[in-house]
Amino acid sequence: MMTKRWRRVALAVFLLPALAIAAPAPRPNLVLIVADDHGTDALGCYGNPVIRTPHLDALAAAGTRYTHAFGTTASCSPSRSVLLTGQHNHRNGMYGLQHPPHGFQSFAGGRSLPGRLAAAGYRTARIGKFHVAPESVYPFEAVLSGGAANDPASLGRSPVEMADQAAPFLAAKDPRPFFLYFAVDDPHRGNVVLPDGRPSFDTYPAPNPFGNRPEGYPGVTAVRYDPATVIVPPFLPDTPECRAELAEYYQAVSRLDQGVGRLMELLRASGQLERTLVVYLSDNGVAFPGAKTTLYDPGVRLPLIVAAPGHRRPGSVQDALVSWADLTPTLLAFAGVDAPAGEFDGRSFVAGLDGLPLPGWDEVYGSHSLHEITMYYPMRSVRTRTHKLILNLAPGQDFPLALDLRQSPTWISAQRGGTGVYGRRPIAQFLRRPGIELYDLTRDPHEAENLAESPAHAAVRRDLLARLQTFRARSRDPWLATETP
Amino acid sequence: MMTKRWRRVALAVFLLPALAIAAPAPRPNLVLIVADDHGTDALGCYGNPVIRTPHLDALAAAGTRYTHAFGTTASCSPSRSVLLTGQHNHRNGMYGLQHPPHGFQSFAGGRSLPGRLAAAGYRTARIGKFHVAPESVYPFEAVLSGGAANDPASLGRSPVEMADQAAPFLAAKDPRPFFLYFAVDDPHRGNVVLPDGRPSFDTYPAPNPFGNRPEGYPGVTAVRYDPATVIVPPFLPDTPECRAELAEYYQAVSRLDQGVGRLMELLRASGQLERTLVVYLSDNGVAFPGAKTTLYDPGVRLPLIVAAPGHRRPGSVQDALVSWADLTPTLLAFAGVDAPAGEFDGRSFVAGLDGLPLPGWDEVYGSHSLHEITMYYPMRSVRTRTHKLILNLAPGQDFPLALDLRQSPTWISAQRGGTGVYGRRPIAQFLRRPGIELYDLTRDPHEAENLAESPAHAAVRRDLLARLQTFRARSRDPWLATETP
Repeated sequence: MMTKRWRRVALAVFLLPALAIAAPAPRPNLVLIVADDHGTDALGCYGNPVIRTPHLDALAAAGTRYTHAFGTTASCSPSRSVLLTGQHNHRNGMYGLQHPPHGFQSFAGGRSLPGRLAAAGYRTARIGKFHVAPESVYPFEAVLSGGAANDPASLGRSPVEMADQAAPFLAAKDPRPFFLYFAVDDPHRGNVVLPDGRPSFDTYPAPNPFGNRPEGYPGVTAVRYDPATVIVPPFLPDTPECRAELAEYYQAVSRLDQGVGRLMELLRASGQLERTLVVYLSDNGVAFPGAKTTLYDPGVRLPLIVAAPGHRRPGSVQDALVSWADLTPTLLAFAGVDAPAGEFDGRSFVAGLDGLPLPGWDEVYGSHSLHEITMYYPMRSVRTRTHKLILNLAPGQDFPLALDLRQSPTWISAQRGGTGVYGRRPIAQFLRRPGIELYDLTRDPHEAENLAESPAHAAVRRDLLARLQTFRARSRDPWLATETP
Repeated sequence: MMTKRWRRVALAVFLLPALAIAAPAPRPNLVLIVADDHGTDALGCYGNPVIRTPHLDALAAAGTRYTHAFGTTASCSPSRSVLLTGQHNHRNGMYGLQHPPHGFQSFAGGRSLPGRLAAAGYRTARIGKFHVAPESVYPFEAVLSGGAANDPASLGRSPVEMADQAAPFLAAKDPRPFFLYFAVDDPHRGNVVLPDGRPSFDTYPAPNPFGNRPEGYPGVTAVRYDPATVIVPPFLPDTPECRAELAEYYQAVSRLDQGVGRLMELLRASGQLERTLVVYLSDNGVAFPGAKTTLYDPGVRLPLIVAAPGHRRPGSVQDALVSWADLTPTLLAFAGVDAPAGEFDGRSFVAGLDGLPLPGWDEVYGSHSLHEITMYYPMRSVRTRTHKLILNLAPGQDFPLALDLRQSPTWISAQRGGTGVYGRRPIAQFLRRPGIELYDLTRDPHEAENLAESPAHAAVRRDLLARLQTFRARSRDPWLATETP
């Protein structure tokens, strides 16, 4: 158990010098850094040779990098609700985006990571994007900055400044361990707010700026990219419009990377680094059609970097299949906080935090309900190392595109380009989906060839469907009721 | 203006005897009685010769009966949110049912009838079914009984007892005028609660009991009906299962009628009747497929009976087209409480409260979004005296059936009956709907023949669509954004 190991390390580092051997081991601090729409496609330590992310790469070099970490839904509020509750959105009630006119909230009476940690003696703070509700379910003792969904002037766009504002919390003379929830707005697409209050992401034909602005941000050195050199991932079209947007996206990632660097520097300066678990992840994949709001890998296979105190295998790589539903159980286990396992849909992977193999971690489940209130497209998925099965529960509609994706020059140009193809898929296939999709990820990692009706794959389909239905029953999926005769 | 007239009456009745001529006129009391799933099909005063509703008939005889009153959405929580805010559900945020696992709420910061009345000096109380949220948007000073959605043991099933529990509020020695929100659970279908907490309405082949129980309810004389004599409305199948269910429904209506009678008796005993406006209405039509959750007339053309103090035309009939979005503006106007008209989607029909003709009240709008969280089926409608146009915004799916309707023996037997017809429509037509439906209500009052593609009706279609889009823009319909290129 990592927890016990860490406690031993903590004893060695902190307690023995003070000869306070009999005192109870202090609980570790927790810092959870959540990026907004950051895929694994744009990280040096995940293999991108162009983008500069030295601070995130350093975090991976000091800790463990996860190769098979998955969000359960590629939508901001629902994904964060899963991260913080250990329950799928279909169980905690956060079916879609929180801000008006969408208005989704978790069910009153629900419990989450900050509340559970506070009850165990932690001081808790959040800074930056929140985007879940109600406060009673997600209570933080201190709100260092509220952030605001879709607010171009949000502090969440200024990650170095965010870190600076969190410094007093990190350095506070308080004997309690702390939990800091640090949620940047980068690298989300940028928007303006129209006179009637609605957001607009419309910049066509110019690329969306992804929060980049001429005057820059305090403490950030703008890192600019040449559209000619960016890496176009297979799910995107290699067009000038897409390359221009990827360059902007990279710049936003390099900005957030500097915020992570500043936060780590402040943690070190506070003297707390050696007793602090730092987690970096993203709510969902990049904000392009084909990733965000889908259950395809670009939407849900996400960066996860964990640097644990006393890490015995710095720079290790973890290939267990873990999901955001596992995060709250894992952090609670690491903190030594008990919680009934039945309250979670996920489970703790604390035993693999420092890179030790995790036998049996070979499948993850996804559950997407809505994104915007107008975007009802419930999907359920199971993914193994070799296959993915997606159940589209309302396949009669075209797959709905979020405002930021619909207005993206990348999508608009693909629509107008006349090829009828987007990335590896015909646009028609992307928009019009059957009730079941089945992909052989070994031969078709880009999920382009649906094998659901292939006789040769009937057994796989049957097996995965059975697992998925078991998962749905266990996690109390309300959509199951629509399938009873 | 009714308000001025009522103030004159109030002066004559209450103030002159006390010689307090210079005192400000007292504001009227308001009692809003809301039934649950009660259609116009089951009321004596609306022409049903079988059902016994003497107290509601007496209310109509003392006041005004509305022949063209419309809910804007045939779903409980959304409809009540419209009643209480004067805004369509797509504007106030209550897109679907409030209770878990659905979890819809109105937007924080919204204002509603009880809050506005309290700010104007009213004391306010609610009793029975609430089913809207949050409390901050729908604040009542006193909660005489919370009621509970889908709770078979709710007080809302015992309307005479409910009236008795409201008596102290009516008779309180308090100089302030009052607003009582009296929301019965009758004649909703009855359910049991399964061990896992989910409701079940499954009684097939026996009829759903509609809350009727062998031991009866305090103060209620059970009025039983012979299935052979009930009136089967045209939208329902004339089958033994349906007749048996209608008999149960009638019994529940006769029960609620006795609650209304008891409430009126207590109002009279309190000495408040002559200064109290009493409104009776239903949130939506009867709980059978073809009515509830649809925008067809059986779902939204509803009872509305208003008995105003000093009514000059007892027993009058009002044929203005009014909707539940008009109710809050109307009651506020009657109470003399100002509110900016721009905050409402509806408008006051106070000038027609005692039956005077209302020129220009010739169209109503409907807006349905969801019911259960799994039942996304956004529809918008405009209805005039001669036509109805329904815009189905997600027509690719089969029309979803609510649990209580899907489990009804009436529906199950129609499915199994093999005729393929339900009421006046083929089942396939009922379940599978085009993007636009257009009905000529003069020749086809049962909305069976869709004329949307009829060249002879192109002008009507164009005109109604234009009106509907104007309404949607004015009422800030979020779904409009999905239609922008």
